Amino acid sequence: MSLLVTGSIAIDTVKTPHGVSENCIGGSAVYFSMAASFFSPVRLVGAVGSDCPFDWTKVFAGRDIDLTGLEVRENSKTFRWVGSYSENMDNRKTEYIELNVLAEEPPIVPAEFSDSKFVFLANTAPNLQLKLLNQIDRPAFVAADTMDFWIEGHPEDLKINCLIINEDEARLLANEHNLIKAAEKILDIGADVVIIKKGESGSLLCNAGGDKFVLPAYPATEVKDPTGAGDSFAGGMMGYLAENNKTDFASLKKAVAYGTVVASFAIADFSLNGLISIDKADIKDRFENLRKIISF
Amino acid sequence: MSLLVTGSIAIDTVKTPHGVSENCIGGSAVYFSMAASFFSPVRLVGAVGSDCPFDWTKVFAGRDIDLTGLEVRENSKTFRWVGSYSENMDNRKTEYIELNVLAEEPPIVPAEFSDSKFVFLANTAPNLQLKLLNQIDRPAFVAADTMDFWIEGHPEDLKINCLIINEDEARLLANEHNLIKAAEKILDIGADVVIIKKGESGSLLCNAGGDKFVLPAYPATEVKDPTGAGDSFAGGMMGYLAENNKTDFASLKKAVAYGTVVASFAIADFSLNGLISIDKADIKDRFENLRKIISF
Repeated sequence: MSLLVTGSIAIDTVKTPHGVSENCIGGSAVYFSMAASFFSPVRLVGAVGSDCPFDWTKVFAGRDIDLTGLEVRENSKTFRWVGSYSENMDNRKTEYIELNVLAEEPPIVPAEFSDSKFVFLANTAPNLQLKLLNQIDRPAFVAADTMDFWIEGHPEDLKINCLIINEDEARLLANEHNLIKAAEKILDIGADVVIIKKGESGSLLCNAGGDKFVLPAYPATEVKDPTGAGDSFAGGMMGYLAENNKTDFASLKKAVAYGTVVASFAIADFSLNGLISIDKADIKDRFENLRKIISF
Repeated sequence: MSLLVTGSIAIDTVKTPHGVSENCIGGSAVYFSMAASFFSPVRLVGAVGSDCPFDWTKVFAGRDIDLTGLEVRENSKTFRWVGSYSENMDNRKTEYIELNVLAEEPPIVPAEFSDSKFVFLANTAPNLQLKLLNQIDRPAFVAADTMDFWIEGHPEDLKINCLIINEDEARLLANEHNLIKAAEKILDIGADVVIIKKGESGSLLCNAGGDKFVLPAYPATEVKDPTGAGDSFAGGMMGYLAENNKTDFASLKKAVAYGTVVASFAIADFSLNGLISIDKADIKDRFENLRKIISF
């Protein structure tokens, strides 16, 4: 089933205890697309400036990622982010940011993408997300990792089926420390499904019907660069759902497990390298291993 | 199979955002005994002073907890602890402590307990633990939640099969932030099994053979008093192992799951109330529910 993503495309400089990656490929929509492409064709909608040094057809070579929605704006510059991680990589600091194209009008969703059924809105300004979503005719399942619309009190303007947020955001949004209660409060606001990401502590999935699923993170020993972990998680998850064209709770559980596995590969190396160096068989192996190490 | 525990017996005063429990029943050996007694007979070894206001035969009424090893010392006073929890209960502060009997000679292990096969050493001074363990002829499986012996560099003096510690202790002991790597380092020092408790993030079980098991905490919405969570975890775990007289990895996984479930009941109310108000069927139900909510 068709899967569309819109979000940032970035030139990143990332510093971790394992090294520095300068002017490397980054951005939420890029990590998402790469992660989702293991499962499903992907339609990427985003914008870069004329300064963007990456050849996207080469970056995504051999993957079914449709770049029709990728705008190169002649008089604009690409979004840039410089960040550093603390020694234990449990804290991230943005050292420098240039919004550039992200501060302009959102990209146009190509007419041939307007029938997209699965849609992921990576974090950006709420009014841009609304403008993007309005260009899609009748999406079946929209997920977002934004919460700004919700905090501003207008969740009804943005028809989101699934909210994917981290634990700090969930606590802030629900004004509740206990994550189960926070998830229930968020579901009351209006989402069908909420997924709370807890980093190395795993994730929590709840739906409006009262179903719950908790999953630890994959116990990875190789963590070189956590950048893109959340977008890779979302990519693996949405890719699996789109591949199977299902959003029942059993499918959502498997999707969260695939997202967990894909994220564990993404953080093993800088930029996209952790995802470029694997194939679907690696993902399936680790998926089965995850199932094994949590079963009792 | 016989299960012996030695550790503290306390008069606690606990302050949490849900209230204050003054001069209530506490202590590591007490929580452990109550938790383990759902699975196996328990031999409790510990000491109190003549000031201890609790009638232990009433406290443990209807449970197979042998109090032959409970010493009441006429000229001593009972261990006292006053602690408070932060608003989110993720931080605990000791406000006041009186070691009293815990600063004296350790209790004597009764001769009829010297054949105990499963032994749990709750946290106390290393030399006391050694003196206690030396009174047991040939234990089959010794677990401890202490790490002082290890940090002092004499792990070989204390024959421990299973070390149960929290994540901060594991990182400190192994000088390694990644918990998988930390567990592997601790296994290298000499334990057969290490269990790292991560509070609301669950636990990690590893053995010297390279087997791994990760389990989230039970997603509890009712948390009134986290005191005794770790000892209840250990009690449920060791109780299950003693009940089945097995310590293979499959049994250890189930034991950790039972420990997780029992701890989730313990924290739902002050002092022992969370454990007193349940029966084995409640534990089995929640055990099956835990299995369900982590399966995919």
